[in-house]
Amino acid sequence: MGTNKISTTIRVRYSEIDRMGTFYNSRALEWFEVGRTEWLRATGISYAEMEHRGVGLPLVESHVEYLATAKYDDELRIEVSAKMSGKARMRFDIEISQAEDSQKVARGYTIHAITDPTSENFPTIRPIRPPQWFTEAIQDI
Amino acid sequence: MGTNKISTTIRVRYSEIDRMGTFYNSRALEWFEVGRTEWLRATGISYAEMEHRGVGLPLVESHVEYLATAKYDDELRIEVSAKMSGKARMRFDIEISQAEDSQKVARGYTIHAITDPTSENFPTIRPIRPPQWFTEAIQDI
Amino acid sequence: MGTNKISTTIRVRYSEIDRMGTFYNSRALEWFEVGRTEWLRATGISYAEMEHRGVGLPLVESHVEYLATAKYDDELRIEVSAKMSGKARMRFDIEISQAEDSQKVARGYTIHAITDPTSENFPTIRPIRPPQWFTEAIQDI
Amino acid sequence: MGTNKISTTIRVRYSEIDRMGTFYNSRALEWFEVGRTEWLRATGISYAEMEHRGVGLPLVESHVEYLATAKYDDELRIEVSAKMSGKARMRFDIEISQAEDSQKVARGYTIHAITDPTSENFPTIRPIRPPQWFTEAIQDI
Repeated sequence: MGTNKISTTIRVRYSEIDRMGTFYNSRALEWFEVGRTEWLRATGISYAEMEHRGVGLPLVESHVEYLATAKYDDELRIEVSAKMSGKARMRFDIEISQAEDSQKVARGYTIHAITDPTSENFPTIRPIRPPQWFTEAIQDI
Repeated sequence: MGTNKISTTIRVRYSEIDRMGTFYNSRALEWFEVGRTEWLRATGISYAEMEHRGVGLPLVESHVEYLATAKYDDELRIEVSAKMSGKARMRFDIEISQAEDSQKVARGYTIHAITDPTSENFPTIRPIRPPQWFTEAIQDI
Repeated sequence: MGTNKISTTIRVRYSEIDRMGTFYNSRALEWFEVGRTEWLRATGISYAEMEHRGVGLPLVESHVEYLATAKYDDELRIEVSAKMSGKARMRFDIEISQAEDSQKVARGYTIHAITDPTSENFPTIRPIRPPQWFTEAIQDI
Repeated sequence: MGTNKISTTIRVRYSEIDRMGTFYNSRALEWFEVGRTEWLRATGISYAEMEHRGVGLPLVESHVEYLATAKYDDELRIEVSAKMSGKARMRFDIEISQAEDSQKVARGYTIHAITDPTSENFPTIRPIRPPQWFTEAIQDI
């Protein structure tokens, strides 16, 4: 088991900036998702493949602290670590910083129910005990 | 001083639904903003006017609990109450529910620095002590 | 058959404004969708119900002319008319203007394939000849 | 002068997919913007720098043809070419395709007024004759 931290970079899009000149607050949650996608890919099973196999991860909670502004075209680093939270939930801890000088822009976490997206009732956020391939994959990182 | 709770309704847009068939998680923060806009309008001074007069409210923290799904075209009620949080911050508590049967969809809060958007350094999230017209307006609700 | 024009109003959200102080260009397409939703509701069968019955309307073409700016919290009127375009497509013509003084903000059109969203291949944008209940509903407006 | 075509790639985000399982239609315009940003960067003067120097490019027209679906996590290639359109406008021609097999996903164009974002009236979409540094930069590509 390694450091469990996966890093990716994005550029801030013009569409993501509001009239204050910094990113609109909800964009942080979209960038968190970009980070989670790369964290899950690093397990060897992409999230697209996980959903196909019957594991979905709808959010049950999100928390963001806004630490500094980020302008259009800034390159940002998204760092993500993750772990099980109880028997049927996952928690992702996420930090966004400027790629150039490491200034912290936002940090927070998201908590996800582990569910079955192929179930008729999906997405009811009714947690399931995750299958073995899933728990093994997320321990591998 | 009344109950301090202001309510507004929206319809879920097709653009707000993801492939799980419920609203994408970051949309909750955009709907929170719709609720805040109406809360501030109820003070007698709209947020657009507040910014013009030199008071901006960038987010410093957001928290969302996702309680149930909401589908395309569902009518949702957004209920907001607000108060000062220390001397230079505001806190909004927000709850989103189905207009038809009051089922709770999401709830959470946002914390905002009180800043001067006409300042050269805006938006640095450097809090200011709010002017008297502002503190009076938000007590009136 | 009436004038075939259905009107609805929205308020510009803070999240929809970019750093130029006007709405970000892609928002026009989201507002067009709000207008289409109300046009379809006026047929007596909402779009949610149409999809449930087996008719989906994915876009095959969109066109927007940007005529003027619109600021945060402006109230906008969206006017929509629609008709069949050939045997398996629909065309919506849409105009957005300021509710207060009728200044035109944007206008354009969207063209949609008529498809079956319950089909295995959906959304392949493979057009179908629409069922009778659909063609009757859209003539009624 | 080269081929004038600049290419960049993106991954489709979960937030960009609607309940049909393909990207929501307005996302094409956001991806067009990502492509334009890279085209302008290739001139040697980024769009952020152009705005700082007094040249803004608000949209006056957009056109999109939707050719195929794209799923969450697909890698897409955005190819952009551009030229002056009359004396005070620019036109970008944009094509989006699957990075893996080159299947075309969307294509279209955007037309932009050349304006001065530092002007008091901005963004009134009042075109200006572009400064020499601008016309030289866009010919260099």
